[in-house]
Amino acid sequence: MRDLSTGPSLLSVNTATVRKQGGLLEIIEACARHGIAAISPWRDQVAAVGLERAGQAIKDAGLKLSGYCRGGLFPATGEHVMAVRDDNRRTVDEAAALGAPCVILVAGGLPQFARPGSTPSKDIVGARKMIEDGIAELLAYARQANMPLALEPLHPMYAADRAAVNTLAQALDIADRLDAGGTALGVAVDVYHTWWDPDLYSSIARAGRAKRLIAYHVCDWLVPTKDMLNDRGMMGDGVVDLRRMRQAVEDAGYTGLIEAEIFSDYWWSQPMDHVLATCVERYRTVV
Amino acid sequence: MRDLSTGPSLLSVNTATVRKQGGLLEIIEACARHGIAAISPWRDQVAAVGLERAGQAIKDAGLKLSGYCRGGLFPATGEHVMAVRDDNRRTVDEAAALGAPCVILVAGGLPQFARPGSTPSKDIVGARKMIEDGIAELLAYARQANMPLALEPLHPMYAADRAAVNTLAQALDIADRLDAGGTALGVAVDVYHTWWDPDLYSSIARAGRAKRLIAYHVCDWLVPTKDMLNDRGMMGDGVVDLRRMRQAVEDAGYTGLIEAEIFSDYWWSQPMDHVLATCVERYRTVV
Repeated sequence: MRDLSTGPSLLSVNTATVRKQGGLLEIIEACARHGIAAISPWRDQVAAVGLERAGQAIKDAGLKLSGYCRGGLFPATGEHVMAVRDDNRRTVDEAAALGAPCVILVAGGLPQFARPGSTPSKDIVGARKMIEDGIAELLAYARQANMPLALEPLHPMYAADRAAVNTLAQALDIADRLDAGGTALGVAVDVYHTWWDPDLYSSIARAGRAKRLIAYHVCDWLVPTKDMLNDRGMMGDGVVDLRRMRQAVEDAGYTGLIEAEIFSDYWWSQPMDHVLATCVERYRTVV
Repeated sequence: MRDLSTGPSLLSVNTATVRKQGGLLEIIEACARHGIAAISPWRDQVAAVGLERAGQAIKDAGLKLSGYCRGGLFPATGEHVMAVRDDNRRTVDEAAALGAPCVILVAGGLPQFARPGSTPSKDIVGARKMIEDGIAELLAYARQANMPLALEPLHPMYAADRAAVNTLAQALDIADRLDAGGTALGVAVDVYHTWWDPDLYSSIARAGRAKRLIAYHVCDWLVPTKDMLNDRGMMGDGVVDLRRMRQAVEDAGYTGLIEAEIFSDYWWSQPMDHVLATCVERYRTVV
Protein backbone atom coordinates (compact mmCIF):
# COMPACT_ATOMS: atom_id res chain seq x y z
CA MET A 1 0.00 0.00 0.00
CA ARG A 2 1.39 3.35 -0.94
CA ASP A 3 2.53 5.65 1.86
CA LEU A 4 0.49 8.84 1.70
CA SER A 5 1.72 10.29 4.96
CA THR A 6 4.62 12.23 3.51
CA GLY A 7 2.57 14.70 1.48
CA PRO A 8 -0.08 15.21 -1.18
CA SER A 9 1.97 14.04 -4.15
CA LEU A 10 -0.83 11.68 -5.23
CA LEU A 11 -3.72 13.89 -4.17
CA SER A 12 -6.09 15.40 -6.68
CA VAL A 13 -8.92 17.72 -5.72
CA ASN A 14 -12.10 17.68 -7.70
CA THR A 15 -12.84 21.33 -8.25
CA ALA A 16 -16.50 20.92 -7.27
CA THR A 17 -15.22 20.45 -3.72
CA VAL A 18 -14.60 24.19 -3.44
CA ARG A 19 -16.76 25.46 -6.28
CA LYS A 20 -18.69 27.92 -4.11
CA GLN A 21 -15.57 29.53 -2.68
CA GLY A 22 -14.00 30.67 -5.92
CA GLY A 23 -13.54 30.31 -9.66
CA LEU A 24 -11.24 27.87 -11.40
CA LEU A 25 -8.22 30.18 -11.43
CA GLU A 26 -8.43 30.72 -7.69
CA ILE A 27 -8.86 26.99 -7.12
CA ILE A 28 -5.81 26.24 -9.27
CA GLU A 29 -3.71 28.77 -7.41
CA ALA A 30 -4.83 27.49 -4.01
CA CYS A 31 -4.27 23.83 -4.86
CA ALA A 32 -0.77 24.58 -6.06
CA ARG A 33 -0.09 26.56 -2.88
CA HIS A 34 -1.15 23.55 -0.76
CA GLY A 35 1.19 21.26 -2.69
CA ILE A 36 -1.71 19.29 -4.14
CA ALA A 37 -0.62 17.33 -7.18
CA ALA A 38 -3.64 17.55 -9.42
CA ILE A 39 -7.21 18.68 -9.99
CA SER A 40 -10.21 17.34 -11.81
CA PRO A 41 -12.08 20.32 -13.25
CA TRP A 42 -15.71 20.64 -14.26
CA ARG A 43 -16.80 21.82 -17.68
CA ASP A 44 -18.75 24.83 -16.41
CA GLN A 45 -15.78 26.06 -14.40
CA VAL A 46 -13.52 25.67 -17.43
CA ALA A 47 -16.02 27.41 -19.69
CA ALA A 48 -16.24 30.34 -17.29
CA VAL A 49 -12.57 31.19 -17.82
CA GLY A 50 -12.15 29.80 -21.34
CA LEU A 51 -10.61 26.48 -22.35
CA GLU A 52 -7.25 27.84 -23.43
CA ARG A 53 -6.77 30.04 -20.41
CA ALA A 54 -7.79 27.21 -18.09
CA GLY A 55 -5.30 24.86 -19.71
CA GLN A 56 -2.52 27.42 -19.47
CA ALA A 57 -3.27 28.15 -15.80
CA ILE A 58 -3.17 24.45 -14.93
CA LYS A 59 0.14 24.09 -16.75
CA ASP A 60 1.63 27.23 -15.21
CA ALA A 61 0.69 26.01 -11.73
CA GLY A 62 2.42 22.68 -12.38
CA LEU A 63 -0.77 20.72 -11.70
CA LYS A 64 -1.68 17.40 -13.23
CA LEU A 65 -5.23 16.33 -14.05
CA SER A 66 -6.95 13.23 -12.71
CA GLY A 67 -9.96 13.50 -14.99
CA TYR A 68 -12.41 15.84 -16.67
CA CYS A 69 -15.97 16.22 -15.37
CA ARG A 70 -18.12 15.17 -17.01
CA GLY A 71 -19.70 13.50 -19.99
CA GLY A 72 -22.70 11.24 -20.18
CA LEU A 73 -26.36 11.86 -19.30
CA PHE A 74 -27.24 9.62 -22.20
CA PRO A 75 -30.98 8.84 -21.93
CA ALA A 76 -32.90 11.24 -24.16
CA THR A 77 -35.72 11.35 -26.67
CA GLY A 78 -36.54 13.46 -29.71
CA GLU A 79 -34.30 16.40 -30.48
CA HIS A 80 -32.37 15.82 -27.28
CA VAL A 81 -30.73 12.72 -28.73
CA MET A 82 -28.54 14.77 -31.04
CA ALA A 83 -27.66 17.15 -28.21
CA VAL A 84 -26.36 14.20 -26.19
CA ARG A 85 -24.05 13.20 -29.01
CA ASP A 86 -22.72 16.68 -29.72
CA ASP A 87 -22.36 17.61 -26.09
CA ASN A 88 -20.35 14.50 -25.30
CA ARG A 89 -18.10 14.88 -28.31
CA ARG A 90 -17.31 18.41 -27.22
CA THR A 91 -16.48 17.07 -23.76
CA VAL A 92 -13.97 14.66 -25.27
CA ASP A 93 -12.44 17.48 -27.33
CA GLU A 94 -12.11 19.71 -24.30
CA ALA A 95 -10.54 16.92 -22.23
CA ALA A 96 -8.03 16.31 -25.01
CA ALA A 97 -7.22 20.01 -25.26
CA LEU A 98 -6.56 20.12 -21.51
CA GLY A 99 -4.49 16.94 -21.57
CA ALA A 100 -6.83 15.16 -19.16
CA PRO A 101 -6.22 11.44 -18.66
CA CYS A 102 -9.92 10.53 -18.98
CA VAL A 103 -13.46 11.84 -19.25
CA ILE A 104 -15.65 10.89 -16.29
CA LEU A 105 -19.00 9.55 -17.51
CA VAL A 106 -22.11 9.93 -15.38
CA ALA A 107 -24.65 7.79 -17.16
CA GLY A 108 -27.85 9.73 -16.60
CA GLY A 109 -31.11 8.35 -15.25
CA LEU A 110 -34.56 8.34 -16.78
CA PRO A 111 -34.68 10.52 -19.92
CA GLN A 112 -36.84 13.27 -18.39
CA PHE A 113 -34.14 13.86 -15.76
CA ALA A 114 -31.02 13.16 -17.85
CA ARG A 115 -32.16 15.53 -20.59
CA PRO A 116 -35.10 17.66 -19.45
CA GLY A 117 -37.74 17.94 -22.13
CA SER A 118 -37.40 14.30 -23.11
CA THR A 119 -40.54 12.16 -22.96
CA PRO A 120 -41.14 11.05 -19.35
CA SER A 121 -40.67 7.35 -18.70
CA LYS A 122 -40.55 4.85 -15.84
CA ASP A 123 -38.57 2.37 -17.92
CA ILE A 124 -35.20 2.08 -16.21
CA VAL A 125 -34.39 -0.98 -18.29
CA GLY A 126 -34.93 1.13 -21.41
CA ALA A 127 -32.85 3.96 -19.96
CA ARG A 128 -30.01 1.52 -19.43
CA LYS A 129 -30.25 0.51 -23.08
CA MET A 130 -30.01 4.18 -24.06
CA ILE A 131 -26.96 4.53 -21.83
CA GLU A 132 -25.20 1.61 -23.40
CA ASP A 133 -26.04 2.76 -26.92
CA GLY A 134 -24.82 6.26 -26.08
CA ILE A 135 -21.55 5.02 -24.64
CA ALA A 136 -21.01 2.81 -27.68
CA GLU A 137 -21.37 5.75 -30.02
CA LEU A 138 -19.20 8.05 -27.94
CA LEU A 139 -16.57 5.38 -27.57
CA ALA A 140 -15.87 5.37 -31.32
CA TYR A 141 -15.25 9.10 -31.16
CA ALA A 142 -13.18 8.90 -27.96
CA ARG A 143 -10.99 6.16 -29.39
CA GLN A 144 -10.06 8.38 -32.31
CA ALA A 145 -9.18 11.14 -29.88
CA ASN A 146 -7.21 8.68 -27.74
CA MET A 147 -9.30 9.73 -24.76
CA PRO A 148 -10.25 7.01 -22.25
CA LEU A 149 -13.77 7.12 -20.86
CA ALA A 150 -14.23 6.38 -17.14
CA LEU A 151 -17.74 5.17 -16.45
CA GLU A 152 -18.62 6.00 -12.85
CA PRO A 153 -21.32 3.94 -11.18
CA LEU A 154 -23.39 6.20 -8.96
CA HIS A 155 -25.12 5.27 -5.71
CA PRO A 156 -28.50 3.61 -6.27
CA MET A 157 -30.24 6.56 -4.63
CA TYR A 158 -29.44 8.45 -7.85
CA ALA A 159 -30.79 5.77 -10.19
CA ALA A 160 -33.84 7.77 -11.27
CA ASP A 161 -32.41 11.21 -11.81
CA ARG A 162 -28.63 11.04 -12.15
CA ALA A 163 -27.30 7.67 -13.20
CA ALA A 164 -28.84 4.29 -13.84
CA VAL A 165 -25.42 2.65 -13.73
CA ASN A 166 -25.35 1.78 -10.05
CA THR A 167 -22.84 -0.95 -9.35
CA LEU A 168 -19.27 -1.55 -10.32
CA ALA A 169 -20.23 -4.95 -11.73
CA GLN A 170 -22.82 -3.31 -13.98
CA ALA A 171 -20.26 -0.78 -15.25
CA LEU A 172 -17.75 -3.56 -15.88
CA ASP A 173 -20.35 -5.61 -17.74
CA ILE A 174 -20.97 -2.63 -20.03
CA ALA A 175 -17.23 -2.13 -20.53
CA ASP A 176 -16.75 -5.81 -21.36
CA ARG A 177 -19.52 -5.69 -23.94
CA LEU A 178 -18.42 -2.46 -25.63
CA ASP A 179 -14.67 -2.67 -25.24
CA ALA A 180 -13.80 -6.34 -24.90
CA GLY A 181 -10.15 -6.72 -23.99
CA GLY A 182 -9.60 -3.00 -24.50
CA THR A 183 -8.71 -0.05 -22.33
CA ALA A 184 -10.75 2.67 -24.02
CA LEU A 185 -13.61 2.28 -21.55
CA GLY A 186 -12.72 2.01 -17.88
CA VAL A 187 -14.36 2.76 -14.58
CA ALA A 188 -14.13 5.42 -11.90
CA VAL A 189 -14.52 3.97 -8.40
CA ASP A 190 -15.90 6.48 -5.91
CA VAL A 191 -16.10 5.30 -2.32
CA TYR A 192 -19.33 7.24 -1.76
CA HIS A 193 -21.15 5.44 -4.53
CA THR A 194 -19.77 1.96 -4.02
CA TRP A 195 -18.87 1.35 -0.37
CA TRP A 196 -22.18 -0.39 0.42
CA ASP A 197 -21.94 -2.96 -2.39
CA PRO A 198 -21.87 -6.59 -1.21
CA ASP A 199 -19.86 -7.41 -4.35
CA LEU A 200 -17.48 -4.46 -3.97
CA TYR A 201 -14.23 -6.27 -3.36
CA SER A 202 -14.74 -8.93 -5.99
CA SER A 203 -15.72 -6.21 -8.46
CA ILE A 204 -12.62 -4.14 -7.68
CA ALA A 205 -10.46 -7.21 -8.26
CA ARG A 206 -12.27 -7.88 -11.53
CA ALA A 207 -11.77 -4.26 -12.63
CA GLY A 208 -8.08 -4.58 -11.90
CA ARG A 209 -7.71 -7.80 -13.85
CA ALA A 210 -9.40 -6.14 -16.84
CA LYS A 211 -7.19 -3.04 -16.47
CA ARG A 212 -10.24 -0.83 -16.17
CA LEU A 213 -9.43 1.02 -12.94
CA ILE A 214 -8.69 4.52 -14.19
CA ALA A 215 -9.94 6.79 -11.42
CA TYR A 216 -10.37 6.54 -7.65
CA HIS A 217 -12.44 9.10 -5.75
CA VAL A 218 -12.68 9.56 -2.01
CA CYS A 219 -14.92 11.33 0.47
CA ASP A 220 -17.05 9.70 3.19
CA TRP A 221 -20.60 8.58 4.00
CA LEU A 222 -22.10 10.44 6.95
CA VAL A 223 -24.70 9.04 9.35
CA PRO A 224 -27.17 10.60 9.24
CA THR A 225 -26.96 11.88 5.68
CA LYS A 226 -29.16 14.95 5.76
CA ASP A 227 -29.27 15.68 2.06
CA MET A 228 -29.06 13.19 -0.76
CA LEU A 229 -26.98 15.48 -2.96
CA ASN A 230 -24.90 17.79 -0.84
CA ASP A 231 -24.07 16.11 2.44
CA ARG A 232 -21.03 14.06 1.59
CA GLY A 233 -18.46 13.80 4.31
CA MET A 234 -14.79 14.72 4.53
CA MET A 235 -12.59 11.63 4.54
CA GLY A 236 -12.56 10.21 8.05
CA ASP A 237 -15.79 11.81 9.21
CA GLY A 238 -18.05 8.95 8.10
CA VAL A 239 -18.37 5.19 8.08
CA VAL A 240 -16.46 4.16 4.97
CA ASP A 241 -13.53 1.84 5.60
CA LEU A 242 -11.23 3.99 3.46
CA ARG A 243 -8.02 2.09 4.14
CA ARG A 244 -9.56 -1.21 3.19
CA MET A 245 -10.95 0.21 -0.05
CA ARG A 246 -7.67 1.81 -1.07
CA GLN A 247 -5.84 -1.38 -0.21
CA ALA A 248 -8.20 -3.29 -2.50
CA VAL A 249 -7.83 -0.79 -5.33
CA GLU A 250 -4.05 -0.79 -5.06
CA ASP A 251 -3.92 -4.58 -4.73
CA ALA A 252 -5.86 -4.63 -8.00
CA GLY A 253 -3.08 -2.66 -9.64
CA TYR A 254 -4.23 0.93 -9.36
CA THR A 255 -1.28 3.32 -9.36
CA GLY A 256 -3.05 6.58 -10.17
CA LEU A 257 -4.05 9.68 -8.29
CA ILE A 258 -6.47 9.79 -5.37
CA GLU A 259 -9.16 12.37 -6.00
CA ALA A 260 -11.09 14.04 -3.21
CA GLU A 261 -14.58 14.92 -4.39
CA ILE A 262 -16.88 16.31 -1.72
CA PHE A 263 -20.29 17.80 -2.47
CA SER A 264 -21.22 19.36 0.84
CA ASP A 265 -23.12 22.41 1.93
CA TYR A 266 -20.99 22.37 5.08
CA TRP A 267 -17.63 22.28 3.31
CA TRP A 268 -18.82 24.83 0.75
CA SER A 269 -19.44 27.20 3.68
CA GLN A 270 -15.82 26.96 4.83
CA PRO A 271 -12.85 29.01 3.55
CA MET A 272 -11.14 27.39 0.57
CA ASP A 273 -7.81 27.16 2.37
CA HIS A 274 -9.39 25.39 5.30
CA VAL A 275 -11.08 22.85 3.02
CA LEU A 276 -7.91 22.14 1.07
CA ALA A 277 -5.75 21.93 4.18
CA THR A 278 -8.24 19.46 5.65
CA CYS A 279 -8.22 17.39 2.45
CA VAL A 280 -4.43 17.20 2.61
CA GLU A 281 -4.40 16.29 6.29
CA ARG A 282 -7.05 13.58 5.91
CA TYR A 283 -5.37 12.26 2.78
CA ARG A 284 -2.18 11.88 4.80
CA THR A 285 -3.80 10.29 7.85
CA VAL A 286 -7.00 8.35 7.04
CA VAL A 287 -7.25 7.72 3.28
CA MET B 1 -51.31 -11.20 -14.00
CA ARG B 2 -53.97 -10.96 -11.34
CA ASP B 3 -56.77 -8.45 -11.85
CA LEU B 4 -56.69 -5.96 -8.99
CA SER B 5 -59.27 -3.59 -10.43
CA THR B 6 -62.29 -5.17 -8.81
CA GLY B 7 -61.40 -4.37 -5.22
CA PRO B 8 -58.84 -4.66 -2.43
CA SER B 9 -59.18 -8.38 -1.80
CA LEU B 10 -55.40 -8.84 -2.07
CA LEU B 11 -54.43 -5.53 -0.48
CA SER B 12 -52.65 -5.36 2.84
CA VAL B 13 -51.76 -2.11 4.54
CA ASN B 14 -48.65 -1.89 6.62
CA THR B 15 -49.80 -0.14 9.75
CA ALA B 16 -46.83 2.25 9.73
CA THR B 17 -48.50 3.89 6.72
CA VAL B 18 -51.01 5.56 9.04
CA ARG B 19 -49.20 5.28 12.34
CA LYS B 20 -49.42 8.98 13.13
CA GLN B 21 -53.17 9.17 12.55
CA GLY B 22 -54.25 6.61 15.12
CA GLY B 23 -53.51 3.56 17.19
CA LEU B 24 -53.72 -0.03 16.06
CA LEU B 25 -57.38 -0.50 16.97
CA GLU B 26 -58.40 2.53 14.92
CA ILE B 27 -56.27 1.34 12.01
CA ILE B 28 -57.85 -2.10 12.15
CA GLU B 29 -61.34 -0.63 12.19
CA ALA B 30 -60.59 1.73 9.31
CA CYS B 31 -58.93 -0.94 7.13
CA ALA B 32 -61.92 -3.22 7.59
CA ARG B 33 -64.26 -0.38 6.71
CA HIS B 34 -62.37 0.22 3.45
CA GLY B 35 -62.62 -3.46 2.51
CA ILE B 36 -58.86 -3.93 2.82
CA ALA B 37 -58.03 -7.61 3.17
CA ALA B 38 -55.09 -7.52 5.55
CA ILE B 39 -52.64 -5.55 7.62
CA SER B 40 -49.01 -5.93 8.62
CA PRO B 41 -48.66 -4.56 12.14
CA TRP B 42 -45.59 -3.25 13.97
CA ARG B 43 -44.47 -4.53 17.33
CA ASP B 44 -44.73 -1.18 19.08
CA GLN B 45 -48.31 -0.70 17.90
CA VAL B 46 -49.21 -4.20 19.05
CA ALA B 47 -47.51 -3.66 22.41
CA ALA B 48 -49.45 -0.44 22.94
CA VAL B 49 -52.77 -2.30 22.98
CA GLY B 50 -51.51 -5.66 24.20
CA LEU B 51 -50.83 -8.78 22.16
CA GLU B 52 -54.03 -10.62 23.00
CA ARG B 53 -56.30 -7.66 22.46
CA ALA B 54 -54.55 -6.87 19.16
CA GLY B 55 -55.00 -10.43 17.94
CA GLN B 56 -58.65 -10.45 18.92
CA ALA B 57 -59.32 -7.13 17.20
CA ILE B 58 -57.69 -8.35 13.97
CA LYS B 59 -59.79 -11.51 14.09
CA ASP B 60 -63.00 -9.68 14.93
CA ALA B 61 -62.46 -7.32 12.00
CA GLY B 62 -61.98 -10.25 9.64
CA LEU B 63 -58.53 -9.08 8.61
CA LYS B 64 -55.68 -11.29 7.49
CA LEU B 65 -52.02 -10.59 8.16
CA SER B 66 -49.34 -10.24 5.50
CA GLY B 67 -46.43 -10.17 7.96
CA TYR B 68 -45.24 -8.96 11.33
CA CYS B 69 -42.82 -6.02 11.64
CA ARG B 70 -40.14 -6.60 12.52
CA GLY B 71 -37.23 -8.69 13.68
CA GLY B 72 -33.56 -8.37 12.92
CA LEU B 73 -31.08 -5.57 13.71
CA PHE B 74 -28.49 -8.25 14.27
CA PRO B 75 -25.10 -6.51 14.45
CA ALA B 76 -24.20 -5.94 18.08
CA THR B 77 -21.33 -6.22 20.52
CA GLY B 78 -20.98 -6.94 24.24
CA GLU B 79 -24.14 -7.22 26.28
CA HIS B 80 -26.24 -6.22 23.27
CA VAL B 81 -25.63 -9.60 21.63
CA MET B 82 -27.91 -11.37 24.07
CA ALA B 83 -30.57 -8.67 23.66
CA VAL B 84 -30.61 -9.32 19.92
CA ARG B 85 -31.30 -12.97 20.51
CA ASP B 86 -34.01 -12.50 23.12
CA ASP B 87 -35.68 -9.65 21.28
CA ASN B 88 -35.91 -11.64 18.06
CA ARG B 89 -37.22 -14.75 19.77
CA ARG B 90 -39.97 -12.68 21.34
CA THR B 91 -40.79 -11.31 17.90
CA VAL B 92 -41.23 -14.83 16.57
CA ASP B 93 -43.44 -15.72 19.54
CA GLU B 94 -45.61 -12.65 19.03
CA ALA B 95 -45.97 -13.35 15.31
CA ALA B 96 -47.03 -16.90 16.08
CA ALA B 97 -49.55 -15.72 18.66
CA LEU B 98 -51.06 -13.35 16.11
CA GLY B 99 -51.09 -15.97 13.38
CA ALA B 100 -48.84 -13.92 11.11
CA PRO B 101 -47.53 -15.70 8.00
CA CYS B 102 -43.96 -14.44 8.49
CA VAL B 103 -41.67 -12.19 10.47
CA ILE B 104 -40.11 -9.42 8.40
CA LEU B 105 -36.37 -9.19 9.07
CA VAL B 106 -34.54 -5.91 8.70
CA ALA B 107 -30.91 -6.88 8.98
CA GLY B 108 -29.43 -3.90 10.77
CA GLY B 109 -26.37 -1.94 9.72
CA LEU B 110 -23.14 -1.25 11.57
CA PRO B 111 -23.41 -2.37 15.23
CA GLN B 112 -23.42 1.16 16.70
CA PHE B 113 -26.59 1.91 14.71
CA ALA B 114 -28.28 -1.52 14.83
CA ARG B 115 -27.90 -1.73 18.60
CA PRO B 116 -26.85 1.63 20.09
CA GLY B 117 -24.18 1.23 22.69
CA SER B 118 -22.33 -1.41 20.68
CA THR B 119 -18.70 -0.72 19.84
CA PRO B 120 -18.52 1.60 16.81
CA SER B 121 -17.16 0.07 13.64
CA LYS B 122 -16.67 0.82 9.95
CA ASP B 123 -16.49 -2.86 9.09
CA ILE B 124 -19.53 -3.52 6.92
CA VAL B 125 -18.10 -6.89 5.93
CA GLY B 126 -17.99 -7.81 9.60
CA ALA B 127 -21.52 -6.49 10.15
CA ARG B 128 -22.72 -8.76 7.37
CA LYS B 129 -21.10 -11.70 9.11
CA MET B 130 -22.94 -10.76 12.33
CA ILE B 131 -26.18 -10.58 10.34
CA GLU B 132 -25.73 -14.01 8.87
CA ASP B 133 -24.77 -15.52 12.22
CA GLY B 134 -27.78 -13.87 13.84
CA ILE B 135 -30.20 -15.12 11.21
CA ALA B 136 -28.75 -18.62 11.52
CA GLU B 137 -29.38 -18.67 15.24
CA LEU B 138 -32.88 -17.22 14.96
CA LEU B 139 -33.76 -19.61 12.18
CA ALA B 140 -33.39 -22.61 14.48
CA TYR B 141 -35.89 -21.02 16.85
CA ALA B 142 -38.25 -19.93 14.08
CA ARG B 143 -38.28 -23.38 12.53
CA GLN B 144 -39.46 -24.87 15.80
CA ALA B 145 -42.22 -22.26 15.94
CA ASN B 146 -43.09 -22.94 12.30
CA MET B 147 -42.65 -19.26 11.60
CA PRO B 148 -41.07 -18.30 8.24
CA LEU B 149 -38.59 -15.44 8.27
CA ALA B 150 -38.75 -12.93 5.42
CA LEU B 151 -35.40 -11.20 4.96
CA GLU B 152 -35.99 -7.81 3.38
CA PRO B 153 -33.12 -6.22 1.48
CA LEU B 154 -33.15 -2.49 2.14
CA HIS B 155 -32.05 0.25 -0.23
CA PRO B 156 -28.27 0.79 -0.21
CA MET B 157 -28.78 4.28 1.22
CA TYR B 158 -29.62 2.49 4.49
CA ALA B 159 -26.54 0.25 4.46
CA ALA B 160 -24.80 2.00 7.34
CA ASP B 161 -27.62 2.54 9.79
CA ARG B 162 -30.56 0.27 8.96
CA ALA B 163 -29.66 -2.78 6.94
CA ALA B 164 -26.48 -4.05 5.36
CA VAL B 165 -28.48 -6.53 3.28
CA ASN B 166 -28.98 -4.39 0.21
CA THR B 167 -29.81 -6.49 -2.81
CA LEU B 168 -32.19 -9.31 -3.47
CA ALA B 169 -29.30 -11.46 -4.71
CA GLN B 170 -27.47 -10.92 -1.43
CA ALA B 171 -30.57 -11.93 0.56
CA LEU B 172 -31.02 -15.01 -1.60
CA ASP B 173 -27.39 -15.97 -1.18
CA ILE B 174 -27.86 -15.84 2.60
CA ALA B 175 -31.05 -17.89 2.36
CA ASP B 176 -29.34 -20.48 0.20
CA ARG B 177 -26.49 -20.82 2.66
CA LEU B 178 -28.65 -21.04 5.79
CA ASP B 179 -31.72 -22.82 4.47
CA ALA B 180 -30.60 -24.78 1.42
CA GLY B 181 -33.62 -26.19 -0.35
CA GLY B 182 -35.88 -25.04 2.47
CA THR B 183 -38.67 -22.53 2.91
CA ALA B 184 -37.99 -21.38 6.46
CA LEU B 185 -36.05 -18.34 5.26
CA GLY B 186 -37.55 -16.34 2.42
CA VAL B 187 -37.38 -12.78 1.17
CA ALA B 188 -39.61 -9.73 1.22
CA VAL B 189 -39.41 -7.74 -2.01
CA ASP B 190 -40.18 -4.06 -1.54
CA VAL B 191 -40.28 -1.97 -4.70
CA TYR B 192 -38.80 1.03 -2.89
CA HIS B 193 -35.69 -0.87 -1.89
CA THR B 194 -35.14 -2.89 -5.02
CA TRP B 195 -36.46 -1.07 -8.10
CA TRP B 196 -33.04 0.37 -9.04
CA ASP B 197 -31.23 -3.00 -9.06
CA PRO B 198 -29.70 -3.95 -12.43
CA ASP B 199 -30.16 -7.61 -11.43
CA LEU B 200 -33.72 -7.15 -10.18
CA TYR B 201 -35.60 -9.26 -12.67
CA SER B 202 -33.16 -12.14 -12.69
CA SER B 203 -33.15 -12.08 -8.88
CA ILE B 204 -36.95 -12.13 -8.70
CA ALA B 205 -37.00 -15.13 -11.02
CA ARG B 206 -34.36 -16.83 -8.89
CA ALA B 207 -36.37 -16.13 -5.72
CA GLY B 208 -39.41 -17.66 -7.36
CA ARG B 209 -37.57 -20.79 -8.43
CA ALA B 210 -36.30 -21.24 -4.86
CA LYS B 211 -39.82 -20.61 -3.47
CA ARG B 212 -38.53 -17.78 -1.33
CA LEU B 213 -40.94 -15.00 -2.35
CA ILE B 214 -43.04 -14.59 0.77
CA ALA B 215 -43.87 -10.88 0.85
CA TYR B 216 -44.31 -8.11 -1.71
CA HIS B 217 -44.40 -4.46 -0.64
CA VAL B 218 -45.37 -1.46 -2.74
CA CYS B 219 -45.06 2.31 -2.56
CA ASP B 220 -43.14 4.53 -5.00
CA TRP B 221 -39.85 6.40 -5.45
CA LEU B 222 -40.31 10.16 -5.70
CA VAL B 223 -38.05 12.51 -7.64
CA PRO B 224 -36.80 14.47 -5.86
CA THR B 225 -36.75 12.45 -2.65
CA LYS B 226 -36.56 15.13 0.02
CA ASP B 227 -35.91 12.91 3.00
CA MET B 228 -34.11 9.60 3.06
CA LEU B 229 -36.47 8.08 5.62
CA ASN B 230 -39.89 9.62 5.35
CA ASP B 231 -40.50 10.71 1.78
CA ARG B 232 -41.73 7.54 0.13
CA GLY B 233 -44.36 8.02 -2.52
CA MET B 234 -47.91 6.73 -2.88
CA MET B 235 -48.11 4.12 -5.63
CA GLY B 236 -48.27 5.91 -8.98
CA ASP B 237 -46.72 9.18 -7.79
CA GLY B 238 -43.14 8.17 -8.54
CA VAL B 239 -40.94 6.50 -11.10
CA VAL B 240 -41.21 2.81 -10.24
CA ASP B 241 -42.56 0.63 -13.02
CA LEU B 242 -45.03 -1.03 -10.66
CA ARG B 243 -46.83 -3.12 -13.26
CA ARG B 244 -43.64 -4.60 -14.56
CA MET B 245 -42.44 -5.47 -11.09
CA ARG B 246 -45.71 -7.12 -10.09
CA GLN B 247 -45.77 -9.00 -13.37
CA ALA B 248 -42.29 -10.32 -12.61
CA VAL B 249 -43.18 -11.32 -9.07
CA GLU B 250 -46.36 -13.07 -10.19
CA ASP B 251 -44.58 -14.73 -13.11
CA ALA B 252 -42.16 -16.07 -10.52
CA GLY B 253 -45.06 -17.72 -8.74
CA TYR B 254 -46.04 -15.20 -6.08
CA THR B 255 -49.69 -15.57 -5.13
CA GLY B 256 -49.73 -13.65 -1.85
CA LEU B 257 -50.97 -10.30 -0.65
CA ILE B 258 -49.76 -6.94 -1.88
CA GLU B 259 -48.73 -4.75 1.01
CA ALA B 260 -48.70 -0.98 0.82
CA GLU B 261 -46.00 0.42 3.10
CA ILE B 262 -45.49 4.17 2.89
CA PHE B 263 -43.28 6.10 5.30
CA SER B 264 -44.13 9.67 4.42
CA ASP B 265 -44.42 12.90 6.33
CA TYR B 266 -46.90 14.01 3.70
CA TRP B 267 -49.19 10.98 3.97
CA TRP B 268 -48.90 11.01 7.76
CA SER B 269 -50.34 14.54 7.65
CA GLN B 270 -53.47 13.38 5.81
CA PRO B 271 -56.64 11.93 7.39
CA MET B 272 -56.49 8.16 7.79
CA ASP B 273 -59.54 7.62 5.61
CA HIS B 274 -58.03 9.65 2.80
CA VAL B 275 -54.78 7.69 2.93
CA LEU B 276 -56.54 4.32 2.94
CA ALA B 277 -58.96 5.31 0.18
CA THR B 278 -55.99 6.44 -1.91
CA CYS B 279 -54.16 3.18 -1.25
CA VAL B 280 -57.21 1.25 -2.44
CA GLU B 281 -57.67 3.39 -5.53
CA ARG B 282 -54.00 3.18 -6.54
CA TYR B 283 -53.93 -0.54 -5.82
CA ARG B 284 -56.86 -0.94 -8.22
CA THR B 285 -55.43 1.28 -10.96
CA VAL B 286 -51.62 1.43 -10.99
CA VAL B 287 -50.17 -1.41 -8.89
